[in-house]
Amino acid sequence: KMLRRVLCTVLFMGALPSLAEVSQGHISVVLLGATGDLAKKYLWQGLFQLYMDQVSSGHSFTFHGAALTALELGQKLMFDVLKKLACPPDESPNRCAVLKDQFLKLSQYHQLKTAENYTVLNREIETLLRQEGLKEAGRIFYFSVPPFAYTEIARHINSSCRPPPGAWLRVVLEKPFGHDLESAQQLAAELTSFFREEEMYRVDHYLGKQAVAHILPFRDQNRQFLDPIWNRHHVERVEIVLKETVDAKGRTSFYEQYGVIRDVLQNHLTEALMFLTMELPANVSRAKEVLQCKLQAFQSLRGLEKTSAVLGQYQAYAGQVQEELQKAQDYISTTPTFAGVLIHSDSLRWEGVPFLLTSGKALDERVGYVRVLFKNQAYCTQSETLRDAVHSQCKAKQIIFYIGHGALNTPAVLVSRNLFRPVMPEGSWREAVGQSDLHIFGQPLSDYYVYSPVKERDAYSVLISNIYHGRKDFFITTENLLASWAFWTPLLDSISHQPLRLYPGGVENQHLLDFEMVSGEVAFTLAEPMELLNPNRLMPSDYRTIQSKFRQSPLVSAWSEDLISQLASDIEKTASRTVAHSGQFHLALSGGSSPVILFQRLARHHYAFPWKYTHIWLVDERCVPLTDAESNFFSLHNHLLQSVRVPYFNVHPMPVHLNQRLCVEEDRGTELYAKEIMALVANASFDLVLLGVGTDGHTASLFPQSENGLEGAQTVVLTESPVKPHQRMSLSLPLINKARQVFVLVLGKGKHDITTLLSRVGHEPRKWPVSGVSPSSGQLVWYVDYEALLG
Amino acid sequence: KMLRRVLCTVLFMGALPSLAEVSQGHISVVLLGATGDLAKKYLWQGLFQLYMDQVSSGHSFTFHGAALTALELGQKLMFDVLKKLACPPDESPNRCAVLKDQFLKLSQYHQLKTAENYTVLNREIETLLRQEGLKEAGRIFYFSVPPFAYTEIARHINSSCRPPPGAWLRVVLEKPFGHDLESAQQLAAELTSFFREEEMYRVDHYLGKQAVAHILPFRDQNRQFLDPIWNRHHVERVEIVLKETVDAKGRTSFYEQYGVIRDVLQNHLTEALMFLTMELPANVSRAKEVLQCKLQAFQSLRGLEKTSAVLGQYQAYAGQVQEELQKAQDYISTTPTFAGVLIHSDSLRWEGVPFLLTSGKALDERVGYVRVLFKNQAYCTQSETLRDAVHSQCKAKQIIFYIGHGALNTPAVLVSRNLFRPVMPEGSWREAVGQSDLHIFGQPLSDYYVYSPVKERDAYSVLISNIYHGRKDFFITTENLLASWAFWTPLLDSISHQPLRLYPGGVENQHLLDFEMVSGEVAFTLAEPMELLNPNRLMPSDYRTIQSKFRQSPLVSAWSEDLISQLASDIEKTASRTVAHSGQFHLALSGGSSPVILFQRLARHHYAFPWKYTHIWLVDERCVPLTDAESNFFSLHNHLLQSVRVPYFNVHPMPVHLNQRLCVEEDRGTELYAKEIMALVANASFDLVLLGVGTDGHTASLFPQSENGLEGAQTVVLTESPVKPHQRMSLSLPLINKARQVFVLVLGKGKHDITTLLSRVGHEPRKWPVSGVSPSSGQLVWYVDYEALLG
Repeated sequence: KMLRRVLCTVLFMGALPSLAEVSQGHISVVLLGATGDLAKKYLWQGLFQLYMDQVSSGHSFTFHGAALTALELGQKLMFDVLKKLACPPDESPNRCAVLKDQFLKLSQYHQLKTAENYTVLNREIETLLRQEGLKEAGRIFYFSVPPFAYTEIARHINSSCRPPPGAWLRVVLEKPFGHDLESAQQLAAELTSFFREEEMYRVDHYLGKQAVAHILPFRDQNRQFLDPIWNRHHVERVEIVLKETVDAKGRTSFYEQYGVIRDVLQNHLTEALMFLTMELPANVSRAKEVLQCKLQAFQSLRGLEKTSAVLGQYQAYAGQVQEELQKAQDYISTTPTFAGVLIHSDSLRWEGVPFLLTSGKALDERVGYVRVLFKNQAYCTQSETLRDAVHSQCKAKQIIFYIGHGALNTPAVLVSRNLFRPVMPEGSWREAVGQSDLHIFGQPLSDYYVYSPVKERDAYSVLISNIYHGRKDFFITTENLLASWAFWTPLLDSISHQPLRLYPGGVENQHLLDFEMVSGEVAFTLAEPMELLNPNRLMPSDYRTIQSKFRQSPLVSAWSEDLISQLASDIEKTASRTVAHSGQFHLALSGGSSPVILFQRLARHHYAFPWKYTHIWLVDERCVPLTDAESNFFSLHNHLLQSVRVPYFNVHPMPVHLNQRLCVEEDRGTELYAKEIMALVANASFDLVLLGVGTDGHTASLFPQSENGLEGAQTVVLTESPVKPHQRMSLSLPLINKARQVFVLVLGKGKHDITTLLSRVGHEPRKWPVSGVSPSSGQLVWYVDYEALLG
Repeated sequence: KMLRRVLCTVLFMGALPSLAEVSQGHISVVLLGATGDLAKKYLWQGLFQLYMDQVSSGHSFTFHGAALTALELGQKLMFDVLKKLACPPDESPNRCAVLKDQFLKLSQYHQLKTAENYTVLNREIETLLRQEGLKEAGRIFYFSVPPFAYTEIARHINSSCRPPPGAWLRVVLEKPFGHDLESAQQLAAELTSFFREEEMYRVDHYLGKQAVAHILPFRDQNRQFLDPIWNRHHVERVEIVLKETVDAKGRTSFYEQYGVIRDVLQNHLTEALMFLTMELPANVSRAKEVLQCKLQAFQSLRGLEKTSAVLGQYQAYAGQVQEELQKAQDYISTTPTFAGVLIHSDSLRWEGVPFLLTSGKALDERVGYVRVLFKNQAYCTQSETLRDAVHSQCKAKQIIFYIGHGALNTPAVLVSRNLFRPVMPEGSWREAVGQSDLHIFGQPLSDYYVYSPVKERDAYSVLISNIYHGRKDFFITTENLLASWAFWTPLLDSISHQPLRLYPGGVENQHLLDFEMVSGEVAFTLAEPMELLNPNRLMPSDYRTIQSKFRQSPLVSAWSEDLISQLASDIEKTASRTVAHSGQFHLALSGGSSPVILFQRLARHHYAFPWKYTHIWLVDERCVPLTDAESNFFSLHNHLLQSVRVPYFNVHPMPVHLNQRLCVEEDRGTELYAKEIMALVANASFDLVLLGVGTDGHTASLFPQSENGLEGAQTVVLTESPVKPHQRMSLSLPLINKARQVFVLVLGKGKHDITTLLSRVGHEPRKWPVSGVSPSSGQLVWYVDYEALLG
């Protein structure tokens, strides 16, 4: 109360600094959570910096700290923080002391708990302005509070604290902005009911990091150099990394709910990724254009799967959670504290370039960077000794946006000297000198042009300045936020029960967290060391392929991955043998999800496969256009045909789409396909037919009780499926039974019941069509994985 | 005569060493060119080594040196060489001295000049064998003579010196084996008229280099490690390099005719390339299987163009040639002494991997190696300091077959320790130790497993031993030789007037010979420094493409190669612009021979072409099955589609083959195609139509006086061609004229008359259909080469 009285006294005595002397209007800044950690550490300092920078701008300011704490205690806590505000090194101590004194006088504490508190705050602001004869320019409400408090506060501000017409309202929101797409949408919807989009400033403090904030301007100012090389033909890989040495101790109540992906990757690293991959708008400082390009870049990202990420947890974490959250001793946390994620963009520019996002706690060093590594396209004829002496084209070429900490311990932009000398804005970045003994990313610092900020600024002071200037391109719009959650949520869902690699923390991690890209996926490089394993965790058992009998035919069984690789090898062997013997290989493939893994395996591991002499036929097809995502052929094309070289003439999709219509009987698609088979396949006897089994016992598109295809002379038939799309085209059972070889692939727990059933029943194709598969003079082999076989 | 008598005396006295004691039979070795450089330097030593190795093998030997020199002088020259034969370090001096003495006694000189000389030689061998009661095992004739002498000698051997039935004949041939494909074929044909294929042993002494000879065994013995990584997904690039410090001084009479490509790349480096890229046969020591795989690998090589190579000549070369060959002071040599060549294989395994073959004289160091560099697929989470301390996955991964000289100065096989510990044959290779301060290819030697031969052996002694053992897989068969010439000859032809970069020689070359890969081509990294240019040198005229008008439309004209590259770039630009604007690109292509070069250019040089979003249509088609060699689509498929990734759904061949018959009107193929166009192409307006012109003025398959397609509403028509196959399907002129852009390509002298005519006539499509091409709202551009334009 005393301090407030002091402020009021000062105010009435006209001694409040410079409030009335200005004409641009008054800005009230309200910091909610004024005594919290973030406020203590960064926000008050940022506000003080704003005041120092803008004291002569023509605006006047008051600063209102607010919290739930009662007035006197709150006041004390807050002014304890304010008194410790630091003077920046580039400010004269005298001026700073005077300004700090003024800043303290312009600041006051409010308890904001009830609706009435907000009304009172509003009244006080109005009174002050009226009394001082000030025009109101705008109000900033900075939410430095836990997310559960957002809606309540937003409602109060909207109903009681809006400035009068003509003045703006800016509410600044701190993450987390939701937990996944759904919760983010919900939170966004609530906020949108209180604030207009242009009123909301969602903070991602990485956008205030000087090196990150400079990515777009750098790309813009260096267009002439970057245009020819900023693409998949020249970029080898991109790494976006934030490593921390601290762990989550003391913060597990927050961390246990979020984990590293939500904490760091979904927001900070993703924003950096967008700045790198988005197409450059004509004007990089226009928030709207930037947003449009960013959203487009989100659209181009390839969806993540659980194999896109490696996840870890430092060993002490579980204990910390047990202690801090009072969990039982056997409580197992599934929250990752380390993640490495491989991201691909399918844009023409970036197709095939790996973007690696990595972050973790309890690592060996604290550092953040965005590193673009270019391909080496040069051959240097002279010997290495000579080569290394100069900045030859054979040295690595990279551009690094160094966010901070690490070996350099300052934000910086580094460009390999054999790339180009970058254009940098003179006022804000300058070339750094010295420290040439340092090595950064495998090269001496002298191999780079190195630029660092003329004035190193804390992210929050950058952001607070941008809030003041209304630069919305430094903040996350609702669309941007939801696009990011839409991208990350499928991964978060799929990994929720994924095993985590335990790591000891610090330098002892050694190579435990190194990971590698393998066919578009990532995996830890080292096998999991036994001594680190949590004894409670499930181990994958190393079963071998079992060879046995099923329904009187050979059975191959293994865990699905081994089974698929065995099947792919067997198909290749059959293909090579057949081509060697008859010059061509007629392979009929089924649709559905199981073969997809097989197709990918064939595409990526079987280089000697005689594709040139292979004819690809379809076992069955859905009556949809071939380019429809539901089409079996479409899936076959995407997962296999587009990666290998089967001649166009050897590809035989089923003619389900004739005369612009689907599977109309009078278009005679079945006859057409039958004729094509007769014309090309000797005796209409396929060399190999790959089948699957449905839970109802269907195979190909031959369903129980089907009128067509289970018997009779017709070789290709139209059938009806109990599930959509209902119309199907299929090879008939008699035709399938003419094949030289038939492989039936059965994968997954969901097939356990039908597998068990099939092991008991005889030849009853009307009930279970697959039981009618019995090649008259060929061989039948069952490939059934352990889950289907054993449940 | 005296020495001969000595030999005979020794013989009669029974003192000739071990001749009669053995039962495996006798081998006569005849070295033609016994006093030449190669013989002096390597061959006699190799023969002595053979003798030392095989003296107890059960075979007896005699060695016959031969040359044109008269007997006494020849004898003296030859025995001067023999007396200097060295004892290998691993041989006991005593045993060696005894064996050398025996070797000298078993050797004699013959003048081989006339037919009679050969008859006499034959008689002497027969006499010796009869007198000693020896069974003849075989005869080796080693041709160490200039190539012009080959035919003559071969004729004599065939007619006079063949061993009796039951004994073998092996003739060993030294390069050069021709100068290009044609001369090589001619030489091969001549030799084949005298010798059977299995009798000829063509030497490429690189196949005797221990590191090169071990490439296939290494791949075979390490299949388990290499199988998953020996492909385009893991290999970043391959370098096959032979650098020399010496220049061609004293050898210009040979060198000036051949140059570095014929001297080193066509043979030595190509053989190493084949060992790397070929599929592994089941048995790598079976010459036939190896040959088959090698020939297949040759088939997969993408054709070379002049932009596939960078060429240089050391500055002193021209002067050396002028002096040694008595040329005028202004004589200009166009012989390259340095070459860097970029080779691609289109096999599934290697597609996209750059193979760089480099060799040159007067370079800064003498070294030879085959280096396979793997992609870095790893991300190492720990800091660099920690990372470098161990053999982390983030260090470079390479396998190097080190041929010799250079920093290591010994043949070796090096495998990065983060790859795998290789399996090496214990008897012949051993792990090398020490020298850990050495750096090889950017890494300390300690980063590699290093193996070197237990017994370092000279290439010739390896080869001579393989001749003795009949190991034909160490030699170049006729098929292999011709495949290599077939590969290299087009490049040699295209660069015969290519400018050469002059280089000073030695370390002063600095970065002058560094080169870079740019969209599938290579170019020197540095611009040519003026001071090095030979002022007398012919400069390739730097013709520009001429831009002008033809029939009121824009005309682009140039020599055909430049014209095609301009056209291909223009098509790519149109494609990229159209895709950026509307998401897809509809391209209609004509058949015929001119577009083939264009298709190849598009396939090989335009990696950024948005194929994924391009639809390919046919302008016209011959009524033949699509797989017929006459089919336009077949040609398009072979030259373009099979090399790029156009989705299956976007490829639209004309339906000339329906219901197992060709272009029958009631099958309504034209309607079908018209409907497909309507369904997919907005307003049936193609984005780009590429046309040609026939000598009769036809375009597409619209011939003069055609009943269909020149006017009217029909968009796709059946027409009659005056030449076979008569039946055609074609887009109509009205449809073509709806296109947004039409490019007409006219190439070659044969088109000069019609070009001249067209430049004068107006719109008369009934007489000259191409004169009716006039897009109603699109653009028409003529691409006419100088030959067609100027005659």
